[in-house]
Amino acid sequence: MPKVDIAALEWTGGSSYPEPFRSLVEGRVRKRLGDAGGLKQFGVNLTRLAPGSASAHRHWHENEDEFVYVLEGKVTLVENEGDTVLGPGDAAAFEAGVANGHHLINRGDQDVLYLEIGTRAPRDRGVFPDIDLGFVKDEGGPRFTRGSGDPI
Amino acid sequence: MPKVDIAALEWTGGSSYPEPFRSLVEGRVRKRLGDAGGLKQFGVNLTRLAPGSASAHRHWHENEDEFVYVLEGKVTLVENEGDTVLGPGDAAAFEAGVANGHHLINRGDQDVLYLEIGTRAPRDRGVFPDIDLGFVKDEGGPRFTRGSGDPI
Repeated sequence: MPKVDIAALEWTGGSSYPEPFRSLVEGRVRKRLGDAGGLKQFGVNLTRLAPGSASAHRHWHENEDEFVYVLEGKVTLVENEGDTVLGPGDAAAFEAGVANGHHLINRGDQDVLYLEIGTRAPRDRGVFPDIDLGFVKDEGGPRFTRGSGDPI
Repeated sequence: MPKVDIAALEWTGGSSYPEPFRSLVEGRVRKRLGDAGGLKQFGVNLTRLAPGSASAHRHWHENEDEFVYVLEGKVTLVENEGDTVLGPGDAAAFEAGVANGHHLINRGDQDVLYLEIGTRAPRDRGVFPDIDLGFVKDEGGPRFTRGSGDPI
């Protein structure tokens, strides 16, 4: 059955960020719609951000396109060019390899609901311009590193 | 600027289907959000179906995952297991290589608005179980064929 039973999916929280980088995303929960539907080539998450929470630390991907589409509430997109408020029906796209660190922050007092889509590339590198953190995915698996690429 | 200026995008209609297969999708128009944002790895379209129109002929892809998320209106998902009505907030996923021909048909009297996401694989084959049509994408470019794979 191709229909995804969204109501039956759990909202899952938590983060694989090493400390002290987890608190920023504590109010982020997701339903993994693409995984539930058996998709392997890209992920589709239905994501809810509580007030004060962010989607991620500001980052960009070397090899993975990303896209967000806002369904409910208002959220601030932060990127190299500054801040932009996105509301329902607004979208943003982040092309792989474009060195523009971005994330979404909920600076309001209501939850925000959005779809986030990202390619699942076999090899990738994530750059976090504001903090001493990096991300690598290769034949050794996915892992966080220091910003230099050194192991944590 | 990663925000996609959706209001500035034109709704584009038309179809590359050979005749006599175009009339089914005459009421389908799209804004190509992913293209507008520079994405190359997957497409994201905001698609509007008028009453009577379908998203496509029933088909499945050998190499490309697909996903739809309904924003407004009600639409019927037709696939091997039968018909399922999808409304706002419903989603469906179509894993690459799963031989389940699917499409959406607007059997109501209101427009339907949805997001459709699909991988852009360098090589693909599309199978249309109900009509004498096929699709191939390879180093020779994308093209429709007869169901047998022979040129049209």
